[in-house]
Amino acid sequence: MDLLTFTTDYGLDDVFVGVCHGVIVRFAPHVRVIDLTHGVPAHDVAAGALALADAVAYLPPAVHLAVVDPGVGSDRRAVAVRTGEGHLLVGPDNGLLGPAAHRLGGATAAVEVTEPAYRLEPVSRTFHGRDVFAPAAAHLAAGVALERLGAAVDPATLADASPPSPEVVRGRLATQVVAVDRFGNLALAASTGDLAAAGLVGPGRVTVATGGRRWAAAVVGTFSDVAPDELALLPDAFGRLQLAVRGAAASRALGLRPGGPVTVEALPDGVGSR
Amino acid sequence: MDLLTFTTDYGLDDVFVGVCHGVIVRFAPHVRVIDLTHGVPAHDVAAGALALADAVAYLPPAVHLAVVDPGVGSDRRAVAVRTGEGHLLVGPDNGLLGPAAHRLGGATAAVEVTEPAYRLEPVSRTFHGRDVFAPAAAHLAAGVALERLGAAVDPATLADASPPSPEVVRGRLATQVVAVDRFGNLALAASTGDLAAAGLVGPGRVTVATGGRRWAAAVVGTFSDVAPDELALLPDAFGRLQLAVRGAAASRALGLRPGGPVTVEALPDGVGSR
Amino acid sequence: MDLLTFTTDYGLDDVFVGVCHGVIVRFAPHVRVIDLTHGVPAHDVAAGALALADAVAYLPPAVHLAVVDPGVGSDRRAVAVRTGEGHLLVGPDNGLLGPAAHRLGGATAAVEVTEPAYRLEPVSRTFHGRDVFAPAAAHLAAGVALERLGAAVDPATLADASPPSPEVVRGRLATQVVAVDRFGNLALAASTGDLAAAGLVGPGRVTVATGGRRWAAAVVGTFSDVAPDELALLPDAFGRLQLAVRGAAASRALGLRPGGPVTVEALPDGVGSR
Repeated sequence: MDLLTFTTDYGLDDVFVGVCHGVIVRFAPHVRVIDLTHGVPAHDVAAGALALADAVAYLPPAVHLAVVDPGVGSDRRAVAVRTGEGHLLVGPDNGLLGPAAHRLGGATAAVEVTEPAYRLEPVSRTFHGRDVFAPAAAHLAAGVALERLGAAVDPATLADASPPSPEVVRGRLATQVVAVDRFGNLALAASTGDLAAAGLVGPGRVTVATGGRRWAAAVVGTFSDVAPDELALLPDAFGRLQLAVRGAAASRALGLRPGGPVTVEALPDGVGSR
Repeated sequence: MDLLTFTTDYGLDDVFVGVCHGVIVRFAPHVRVIDLTHGVPAHDVAAGALALADAVAYLPPAVHLAVVDPGVGSDRRAVAVRTGEGHLLVGPDNGLLGPAAHRLGGATAAVEVTEPAYRLEPVSRTFHGRDVFAPAAAHLAAGVALERLGAAVDPATLADASPPSPEVVRGRLATQVVAVDRFGNLALAASTGDLAAAGLVGPGRVTVATGGRRWAAAVVGTFSDVAPDELALLPDAFGRLQLAVRGAAASRALGLRPGGPVTVEALPDGVGSR
Repeated sequence: MDLLTFTTDYGLDDVFVGVCHGVIVRFAPHVRVIDLTHGVPAHDVAAGALALADAVAYLPPAVHLAVVDPGVGSDRRAVAVRTGEGHLLVGPDNGLLGPAAHRLGGATAAVEVTEPAYRLEPVSRTFHGRDVFAPAAAHLAAGVALERLGAAVDPATLADASPPSPEVVRGRLATQVVAVDRFGNLALAASTGDLAAAGLVGPGRVTVATGGRRWAAAVVGTFSDVAPDELALLPDAFGRLQLAVRGAAASRALGLRPGGPVTVEALPDGVGSR
């Protein structure tokens, strides 16, 4: 592997990220490192999992090192995973790697990272990015076989922070919010393909329901198709559906956060009625 | 080209920058990438143009990828530009590239980036950094000829966010604010050379006028030459003049923002009267 | 040297860091650059010195470029330093490099960086990172001998921002706060070894005194050993002792900041009494 990506919730104000880069270059002097982001909200495993999965789809085969690890020091496993498309994932077994593994062909093999020769000993209680994960990822990038990092793990036992699949029936799509961006736009765990499968493709109008409340929304292709203050359902840049209010925060207008339920249904005068 | 620089208003909290790095490495595995900044204020084309122009002057020949793109999804052109000094610039044709092109010998050739073979298809409506600009820049860095990216564009038709040139007469320099830094210092669209051409070089005092109000200011070489709370006119680190108040924000004291007019004139007892 | 690290208080919102990267690649096209952090609090030499020293311990031999330079434009020296372990340090002689030099085997040779051939002339008054330090570091990485950068400096005369060594006697450890992290945890200028030397190793309880006030604290190995709202003394990830309150900011609870004095003493029923 010539390429290693790096994703964390460490932020860039401290030396944590820089120290991990140092450890990587020590064990894999020639690998190229791409920082995907270090701005995952602190301890937000689901957000980190989504960011990682979004990004890896655009990368050639690589070792993907990811650390969002609220359970550091507990008995959660440290794992390395091989995927169907030949990528490798390294991080805590808390669900963080799941969505990326799905995106890359599924987990085909995994090990628990326990071999002291491939860690920085003594391993600290709080900084496994430096002591466990970065050394493992770097050794993999340098050509060490996955199997040498520790005992095999059944891929079926790996934690997975993927949101539930949407429920799709004719005229109805039930899903949930997976992310809120800085503008208050709400990304959903459903794609434009799911909307089409429910027969709700635009242009036209649908009903958006959440927590007993209902709104009319326009199904459009881009922001410029939306009237000011109108609620719209449109694709985001990663193939997901998003709910947005032009010129306002949909998160506030709808009172929704990640994990919040969203149902999209046909309106009598809307696309679903055709 | 061995070198590619990257400038945006994406920030580092999301994976946008990381995804573009992934796209770059996919099409140009061996290019070196330098992030100039991703902290341009959102949608501030003039600020991005200034930052890019300041930076490129210190770089060897490179492909400069820049994306500050409030008009993404509209009909603004995506362009790639060759400069007199042999650099290449890639970004939206909204003025962002203009000042950098001037700094690098002027635009000598340009194309509209339309060739599907050098984009990520299907191109999204909102993320042209990933789908249009990064692929174009990477292909250029990998040796694809500029002319193959799309149809030729007359360099004279390229948008240019450069501020107007200062008006210089004996004893008077009329210009405008181009940037405010974190300390409230006001960078002007005029150089120390312009001040000299107006006969206003220090040490001494001048009058600074803006919006009908007038202040006395000291013409000095560095901050340590200024008394506390005194308004001063001095060089910044990029050859521009700046207005600063030692220990306070000149932006607040003078009520000025980027684009605000500033006139510097001789005082009876000042440098301009000699 | 194949490796160059870079640490500043420039932040990432402006092009300062990017410009320095450009200067480095100009003079050392093949060197690999690792950004340790650019988030050192503005002008906080002690914080920068600590961050640099923490990080370099995890890096292979490298040129370490560091700029936290409130005295830029004054007569403070610009220096380059060789250490006992074969690393090179470049930065202002204001104490910033001292703790890192100690960590890397001590300063064995130093020069003042004055040779115009290895600077960007004319040197600006305010941006020595670009004009003096980055060029010097890059030339060193490219193989220029340390001695060619300027006249020799006696390493004993180099400024050193290291905190004072702790005072250790049986049953008593007197030290000071060196850093506060984002959670309000207080890192001390003493190690777990110092605590052991004072006979205060846990598990058990000690008294923490500062400014005439006294608290009981638990000596533990990790956060999960602490009760909510309890004051604890435990190792941080870099071998230092830290004071922490689980679920709260120790800095606020104890009213302490960097430089604040802390004394740890035996309690009648604590570890020190055994």
